Amino acid sequence: MSSIFTKIVRGEIPSYKIAEDEYFYAFLDINPLAKGHTLVIPKKEVDYLFDLDMDTYLGLQQFTYNVAVALKEAIPCVKVGVAVLGLEVPHAHIHLVPMQTEQDINFANPKKKFTPEEFESIRLAIAACLK
Amino acid sequence: MSSIFTKIVRGEIPSYKIAEDEYFYAFLDINPLAKGHTLVIPKKEVDYLFDLDMDTYLGLQQFTYNVAVALKEAIPCVKVGVAVLGLEVPHAHIHLVPMQTEQDINFANPKKKFTPEEFESIRLAIAACLK
Repeated sequence: MSSIFTKIVRGEIPSYKIAEDEYFYAFLDINPLAKGHTLVIPKKEVDYLFDLDMDTYLGLQQFTYNVAVALKEAIPCVKVGVAVLGLEVPHAHIHLVPMQTEQDINFANPKKKFTPEEFESIRLAIAACLK
Repeated sequence: MSSIFTKIVRGEIPSYKIAEDEYFYAFLDINPLAKGHTLVIPKKEVDYLFDLDMDTYLGLQQFTYNVAVALKEAIPCVKVGVAVLGLEVPHAHIHLVPMQTEQDINFANPKKKFTPEEFESIRLAIAACLK
């Protein structure tokens, strides 16, 4: 069965898309730790980040770098934090979380709530900063 | 003033070194969240990960990938998790944490204690798995 992220890439499940190319896809986390919390994934359905072949892994990191730069430009924050946990969804994904403090990237925190209009406005702001 | 990590790279502060090349350095976190918790840094003292130039950033990620593969081979775990927070030490660093559950990479958790002999034995086990 396809992962939930593969369904998002295929458009079978809607997402607030930030960026996409042939191999990678970035979209807003709908249970965000902070405003602008973004997930970056390879389209290839590989469970564990370090099982990606090196070329795909480095491509994913390059794509992630560009998204992180846009994110910091669009969302006021001290830094964009990075986390890869991956014991819940078996499809490698990188969390990018705009942080004011290190506590902002604690996954035990309650998730933020935004309306669809707010998500769409956050999405547009980040996408507009992508080079 | 040099960062604590620059002092570690220079050998002015001792560390349990896992790997080193001309540009990057990996060593055990002495306040680990889990056995084998490793820090990977660029030798260049840059505060924010996404301020690294793209070549250095991708070199760091490639170096990190190789350390993560060795770490998973050396330390029994479900996956190696990744985190970049970086609001405490102003020198970009990637945390690699062998995880049994996602809770293992919660930075609010109490830190594990190991003796110098245990740290050295962990270090040797990981270094021995590096290709």
